[in-house]
Amino acid sequence: MHTVFYVSDGTAITAEVFGHAVLSQFPMTFEQVTIPFVGDVEKAQLVKAQIDSCFTQSGKRPLVFHTIVDTQLRNIITNSEAKCYDFLNTFVAPIEQQLGIKADPQVHRTHGMDNKKHYDTRIDAVNYALENDDGVTTKAYNEADIILVGVSRCGKTPTSLYLALQFGIRVANYPFIDQDMQQMSLPTALKTNRHKLFGLTIDAQRLQEIRQRRMADSQYSAAAQCRYELNQVEKLFRQEAIPFIDTTFHSVEEISVKILERAGIRRRIY
Amino acid sequence: MHTVFYVSDGTAITAEVFGHAVLSQFPMTFEQVTIPFVGDVEKAQLVKAQIDSCFTQSGKRPLVFHTIVDTQLRNIITNSEAKCYDFLNTFVAPIEQQLGIKADPQVHRTHGMDNKKHYDTRIDAVNYALENDDGVTTKAYNEADIILVGVSRCGKTPTSLYLALQFGIRVANYPFIDQDMQQMSLPTALKTNRHKLFGLTIDAQRLQEIRQRRMADSQYSAAAQCRYELNQVEKLFRQEAIPFIDTTFHSVEEISVKILERAGIRRRIY
Repeated sequence: MHTVFYVSDGTAITAEVFGHAVLSQFPMTFEQVTIPFVGDVEKAQLVKAQIDSCFTQSGKRPLVFHTIVDTQLRNIITNSEAKCYDFLNTFVAPIEQQLGIKADPQVHRTHGMDNKKHYDTRIDAVNYALENDDGVTTKAYNEADIILVGVSRCGKTPTSLYLALQFGIRVANYPFIDQDMQQMSLPTALKTNRHKLFGLTIDAQRLQEIRQRRMADSQYSAAAQCRYELNQVEKLFRQEAIPFIDTTFHSVEEISVKILERAGIRRRIY
Repeated sequence: MHTVFYVSDGTAITAEVFGHAVLSQFPMTFEQVTIPFVGDVEKAQLVKAQIDSCFTQSGKRPLVFHTIVDTQLRNIITNSEAKCYDFLNTFVAPIEQQLGIKADPQVHRTHGMDNKKHYDTRIDAVNYALENDDGVTTKAYNEADIILVGVSRCGKTPTSLYLALQFGIRVANYPFIDQDMQQMSLPTALKTNRHKLFGLTIDAQRLQEIRQRRMADSQYSAAAQCRYELNQVEKLFRQEAIPFIDTTFHSVEEISVKILERAGIRRRIY
């Protein structure tokens, strides 16, 4: 198996995302090694030795995706036996020309702490999601950007947290309970914020699997109960004209981006 | 101001991360527009029109970072007036040559739902973090990969959630309370899992700011209280040989990656 190294003087998250996206185009699997915070010559030389030793032992030339700002450290890595790909610098020169401005690289700019405002936006959103998770309170719905609604275990909480952490969006979530579904009407707190509502639904069999892992062989995880709740909730979405998406075949990222797109909301942080 | 478009037939998250990393090298700000799920000719033509109209109105040639698998759709975008950067395809050809294998591009592979196992790992980790947040219970610490410890509001919860969502790591967190700090000893549940402990600390003034925003002019947010707690907790970390890092000048990403690195834990999901 080919080994891929993600090497950076920062978190290496950019190198990972980039390398992973490129390699996902190839129908094969790779051994992936991430090496963050390569900040001095000594560490860079150790990394080079690790890469070279990987080549010697496997006989296969490793791939290295790197984002290293310091030229001296970068040269140590690129002098290894690996095939190195530097996606930042590949694009910096043409963009410099296009913009008519010189790049001014700094370590840690991408996933570092740009400023306190950015940090506060993000942490406030996470706190908001936690405090307004699972319908525990509906008092702060006036502060929500989005209120996710749906049956228990259809993906509301992970989506709320992802939107908060990655995009700085304030998301509350409310699970429909039996009473809501029997009455087929929205609780008052939801009615007064109906422009913020976004529904999630899921395939009944998948829901049952998820609930089984949570509470095996219960009323809660019975196939009939899952079908009943989903049936009612989708009726309610249609009746109340709540936009909704099916989470069954989508990742948390896809669901989050679809919600932002359909709700017309832009991310607050990058 | 120059406008940058992130355009994709998927979530556009890869295009955003890539473009944002490249542009962070430049000492200027950009108007950023993300356009995900460009999945058909009609939508691609609308996006092209939007890009062209941006050029006409601003007089500045927009930049486009795109990751579009379908050649026809991609050509529509690259025929716009923008300067387009295609980082996937720039690297795919040289890597094909290096690996001696043809790429087999598919939409949604990067941030799509690769498989149920990946999804379950992630959601289990998120549930674990929520159920073991803030010391509410210590019964499941045997299942933790890491247990974050520190004073209230030093960054434990956002870090736990980030590690769960992005890396699939199971993280519990425990806030030291007055009693722990007065006795200067670890509760039993922590003692029996001490190899999993990781400490967070923070600058006293920054902690006070954060607590003020939470509960203004209280004992909890008093400068002396913050200094006392941090002083004690750092002593405790040293006394118990718990590795710890200062979160003051670090992003959640940096803290998370540093913890994985120092704890020698590898991410479970990409």
